[in-house]
Parts: sequence; structure tokens; C-alpha cells
Amino acid sequence: MRVYLDNAATTPIDEDVLNVMTETMREFYGNPSSTHLMGRKSKSLIERSRKSVAKHLNCLPSEIIFTSGGTEADNMAINCSVKHLGVTHIITSEIEHHAVGHTAQHVADGKQVKLSYVKLDDKGHVDLAHLEELLSTVKEKTLVSLMYANNEIGNLLPAKEVSILCRKHNAYFHSDTVQSMAHYAYDMKTFDVDFLTCAAHKFHGPKGSGFLYVKNTIKLTPMIFGGAQERNLRGGTENLHGIIGLAKAMDVAYDDLEGHKTHIEGIKAYMIKELKANINDVRFNGDSDNLERSLYTVLNVCLPESKNSSMLLFHLDILGICCSGGSACSSGANKGSHVLAGIGSDPKRPAVRFSFSKYTTKEEIDYAVKHLADLYK
Amino acid sequence: MRVYLDNAATTPIDEDVLNVMTETMREFYGNPSSTHLMGRKSKSLIERSRKSVAKHLNCLPSEIIFTSGGTEADNMAINCSVKHLGVTHIITSEIEHHAVGHTAQHVADGKQVKLSYVKLDDKGHVDLAHLEELLSTVKEKTLVSLMYANNEIGNLLPAKEVSILCRKHNAYFHSDTVQSMAHYAYDMKTFDVDFLTCAAHKFHGPKGSGFLYVKNTIKLTPMIFGGAQERNLRGGTENLHGIIGLAKAMDVAYDDLEGHKTHIEGIKAYMIKELKANINDVRFNGDSDNLERSLYTVLNVCLPESKNSSMLLFHLDILGICCSGGSACSSGANKGSHVLAGIGSDPKRPAVRFSFSKYTTKEEIDYAVKHLADLYK
Repeated sequence: MRVYLDNAATTPIDEDVLNVMTETMREFYGNPSSTHLMGRKSKSLIERSRKSVAKHLNCLPSEIIFTSGGTEADNMAINCSVKHLGVTHIITSEIEHHAVGHTAQHVADGKQVKLSYVKLDDKGHVDLAHLEELLSTVKEKTLVSLMYANNEIGNLLPAKEVSILCRKHNAYFHSDTVQSMAHYAYDMKTFDVDFLTCAAHKFHGPKGSGFLYVKNTIKLTPMIFGGAQERNLRGGTENLHGIIGLAKAMDVAYDDLEGHKTHIEGIKAYMIKELKANINDVRFNGDSDNLERSLYTVLNVCLPESKNSSMLLFHLDILGICCSGGSACSSGANKGSHVLAGIGSDPKRPAVRFSFSKYTTKEEIDYAVKHLADLYK
Repeated sequence: MRVYLDNAATTPIDEDVLNVMTETMREFYGNPSSTHLMGRKSKSLIERSRKSVAKHLNCLPSEIIFTSGGTEADNMAINCSVKHLGVTHIITSEIEHHAVGHTAQHVADGKQVKLSYVKLDDKGHVDLAHLEELLSTVKEKTLVSLMYANNEIGNLLPAKEVSILCRKHNAYFHSDTVQSMAHYAYDMKTFDVDFLTCAAHKFHGPKGSGFLYVKNTIKLTPMIFGGAQERNLRGGTENLHGIIGLAKAMDVAYDDLEGHKTHIEGIKAYMIKELKANINDVRFNGDSDNLERSLYTVLNVCLPESKNSSMLLFHLDILGICCSGGSACSSGANKGSHVLAGIGSDPKRPAVRFSFSKYTTKEEIDYAVKHLADLYK
């Protein structure tokens, strides 16, 4: 049996998304920059995709820049803020994804900006009073970069409050929404933020395709130079089938957002209940067992110490259970999770991240919990 | 009838490439950075693709870094040379692709480097004596960036001679091979160059997938920061199906390189002959009618002045003939071609780029030539 509970790392592609991508690759091969019929067809498919994405976010099509994924989009937001918006100070946290953390560190190493880290409470939530303190004491042009939902422990940012604080103190606001886009509704007419990011493969779309939302008041220049693609903001022949796959995956997600959410929240609540019933002293990292304040797709389990600890993921893998010790992006590196370290999680207690999708069933949860409990018997 | 003669802009996908991509998206959805079975399967597919690409180039797998395409790869080569190899002087030409030209201009605008342009002869070929003069008079650490084959007029660089000059004068050498990769054989054991670039969609592979070849003596750092992907050189979840599609397209190309070359050279020679026979005073831009010194996939036709000039591409489009006035990357911009301007082409004579692939037939050439000749009757 294979039980896939690593949907925060990536999700299986939706069959409708796959079909539209295959059709696009076969039929619409023109270069969107070509002026002939084949090129114009491709161009119109891209612009239709952009409009469709914008409609879901209630924003302008021109506010969407397609990229090769969430990481490139996060890099673009931070680089462009520093290079072109005059930002000399970035406020972020210790538990951001490396796409933000390493990029911010890189621009700081280049002596271009000063970095400040906002305090986190014992559950890993941002200390809003400290954020306001930082914003009000610093005089430099500031970018606040705080993720909407943490990819490892699932904590949700009080993003509207952060947005209001940023505006009050005249700071730019970038929120990494890679883990939450197409899992939550965003209304850009009421959510006042400068940059959001998206990776299609986090919601049953293709890998290698994402976008950067940039508020239309921001004037950017490219990070990747070349042709006039993306209104001169990103050179390179567009990943046509990837863009179309992204737009289709968003359609599928937003067409029944509440249905998927209800199903997955039910799965998560069920797993919490079953884990508590079957494993003594099971705990949850961050605030991931708090359904109100955490991503409904992620549950980060803090297990008791055991002689099996170091081999836990290996044993689960042998049993066909796909899950993660941290984020996929760092799990291959054999380093501890910077997120768990950042919230002071007990390193002796093994952490396992289970993450769910619309395809996850209670039977899969039963299988995972039974075998996890067996390892603790 | 539709006649697709714009293969330098992009090529139709090979059916075998499409099939392997579709299978990958459906079956192998694990994140290559995940340590469980599904992740390891994806990871092994990427590494197998890397080995396969490296085998075709007779280089090390670790010299291949997968990117979102040729433009990103060109940007990475230039940015990394300036930021990490201490390059303060770039020698390039006026007829490079914008992925090189605009990137070099950008780093020069940032006052990081000095730009020098090598002289071109009246056919658009690089003046090697001037290149050596530039290399020998300048004391700064230098990167030479000259494309292997020009995407608009097809001129081939005497790349080995350039490589020898670069080594003699201790300069780095980057050659944009986006238009020639998988159309020519490269043996990296005998071709001494630091950076080459590739875009899969130029040889019947997918859009949004390419690579940067980096000689193993070069120590790079990333342009896009994030996870540890691509040995810490490019953050972001890998475009798995794109990478596999790229590798498959290279297999298909290199499995019968000579066969494809012979077929396409025959098509090009045939079109030259037919154009000369049917249109008075037809000429060819650059050296594109010289089969020895130009890309066999590209023919840039310099037509006589006519009252129809401004509507020429429009008329061809109406007739179902897909071709280009310059490169696709700039043709949408309604600006004249910087390449044709760079070689001093007569702006009153319309230029049309026809570009061919293994799928192009003589019947398609007949159709295009007949209708082009009709417009001149």
C-alpha cells in the first residue's frame, strides 16, 4: 500500500490539468512572441490564463507575472524591492522558507540591506507588538517578508493585521503564499499587500510554473533579462503548457474551495484524534493542532522519544507511507529543520510532517496511524 | 494549408517527448527533494536525465545545471561571472540575443563592468583580429560572450578559434548555444568553453526547460536562492517533466543528428535555389545562404523593395505561412531587428526569416516560395 501524506512538498497532478497541458503541448506550439497565427494563439492562451488567475484573486491581469515557480517569485520580490524600490531594511522571521530566508540573507551579505528578525511566540506565531516596534523604530525604507502559512508547521499569519501595520509605517509587504495559494481565498481589493507568490504544484498543478503577484502601484524591473515577455519583466519564452496548467489547477481549486477545505479539515481533525487515542504523549509542533490558526493541509506531529527515533521516517517509508521530517526542500540535506529549531522544538522528540490533499482518505490516515502506533508499542 | 517555417522561434514537440512527459506527470509526482520512495524515484529520474545530457556532450553530469530555459541560463552565466568570478569586462557583439545583450547591458549599467563590442565583418561574422586586439589590450578579468549560431541570420561562430584566443588571454568564454544545441555535436573534452546554454523547445522539447553547462573548474553560486536543488546552485522544486522532456528531446536529436542535418540542409539549399529562380534580385542577410558558415536551420531572406513590404508578413500569415521578421523574442515589439541593424542590412528591403526542422517538407517550401513570388509579381 502507498499512502501519500506529503502534499505540502508537492501534490499529484489533477487529471483535468494534465489533459489540458497535453493538448496544449500537442496543438499550440507557436512561440507566444511570434506575430503569426500560431504565435497569436499561444499568446492569447497565456493572456486568457492571466485573466483567469486575476479573476480568482480579484486583481488586475497586469498584476500577475508568470515565473518558473514560487522560489523564483520570492527571489524576484526581494531582489526587486532592494534594487529598484530603495529598500535597505528587511524584516522577516527565522522560520521562513529558504526561498525567502536565503535570499534575504544573500542581499544582506552583499551589504545592501539590514536584516531584522521579528520575535515569535512559543507556538511560532509572529509577535505583532514586536513587529510594530521594529517598524516604528527603524527609519530605513523597509520590506516586511512574512509567510502567509508556514510550510512545515502550518502556522497562519494574521496577514491583514500585518498588512495594516506595514501601511501605517509605510513599509512594503511581501507574503510567501506558496503553501496557501489556491487553498485559501484571496481578495486583493481588500488584502493590501505588495507581493504574493505561487507555485502550481502545491495545488495539483505542474511543477516549474508559478507567479508573482505585484501590486499595480509598484514599478518593477526584471530579474531575468532577455526578450519582452511578461511586459518586459521576465525574459524567456513562456512555459505555455505550465501557465495553462497553473490556471486550470487554480480553476479546479477555486471552483470548490469550501468543499476541499471541509474534506481536508475533516481528515486533519481525524488524524489528530486518532494519534491522541493511539500514541501516548503525542504532541504537535507549532500550533498545527489548532484548526483555527494553522493551515488545514499540514499537521506536524511531535512524537515521544524512542530508540526508533532516528529510523522513524525510514520505517514509515518501508511501509509505503510518504511523509516528511521537515520541508522537502531541506529534508534531503540531512540537516535539522530550521523551522523546528526556530520555534525551540525539543530535538530529542522526532517530528513528522503529514500533509493532506483533496485525495486523502480516512483509510490512509488509519493505515498511517496504526503503523506509527505500532512503532511505539 | 498551414506551413510552419518558424522553427528558430520554437519547434513542435516530438510525440515521444510528449508521451514521456505525460507519463512522468501522471506517475512520478514526488518532490525530488523528498526522502521517501516517491521523492527518490523523482530524484533518480532527474539524475538519469542529467547523465544522459552529459553523455551527449561528453561532459560530467555535475557540469549540467537545469534551468527554466535558455534565457535564465544566459543570465546565470553572465551574472555569476560578474558577481563571483571577478569579471569586470565583457566582450560581446551587437548581434547577440537579448538574453545576452540586455543582461550584459544591465550589469554594465550597474557600473560593475565595462562592455566592449567586437567588430563584425560585412556578413556579420566576428572579426577575430579585433577580438584578439581587445583581449590583449584590456587588463581587467574578462568574459567573452559570443553566440555559437545567430538566431536571426544563422551565422556560425568559429567557436574553437574564439576558445583558443580566450584561453591564450586568460578570459572566460560563454557561448549562447540556444539555437544550435542538439543541432550540432558538442564534445566538451575538446571544446574548451566555460558556459553553454540550452532551451529544449528549440529541438522539439518542452518550453520552460533548459540548462546551463558550467565547466567543472568554475565555482558558482546561485542566481535564484532557496532549497538545495541543483547542488545548491538553483533553488526551486525541479520541473521534473520538463527536465525529462529535455533529456528525451536530446536523445531523439542526437540519435540521428546526421540524418536530420542532411534532411534540413537539403531543404535549405532547395529553398535558396527556388527563391533565386522565382524572385528577381533576392538576397540573403548575413551569410545565411552560405551552407558552410551558417546554421542549417535558418535562412534569412532579403527581399527586394516593394509597395507590399510593410504588409509582407501579414500576407504570408493570411496564406498560412508561419515565419518571422526577426527573432520571435523581438518581433512582437514592432521594433526593427537589432541584428539586421547590427550588420547594416538595408532597412528598405524586407527581411523574412524562414527556419526549418526535421518535419519540414519540400512541398511546404514550394508553397511558401510560390506565394512569396506571387506577392512580387
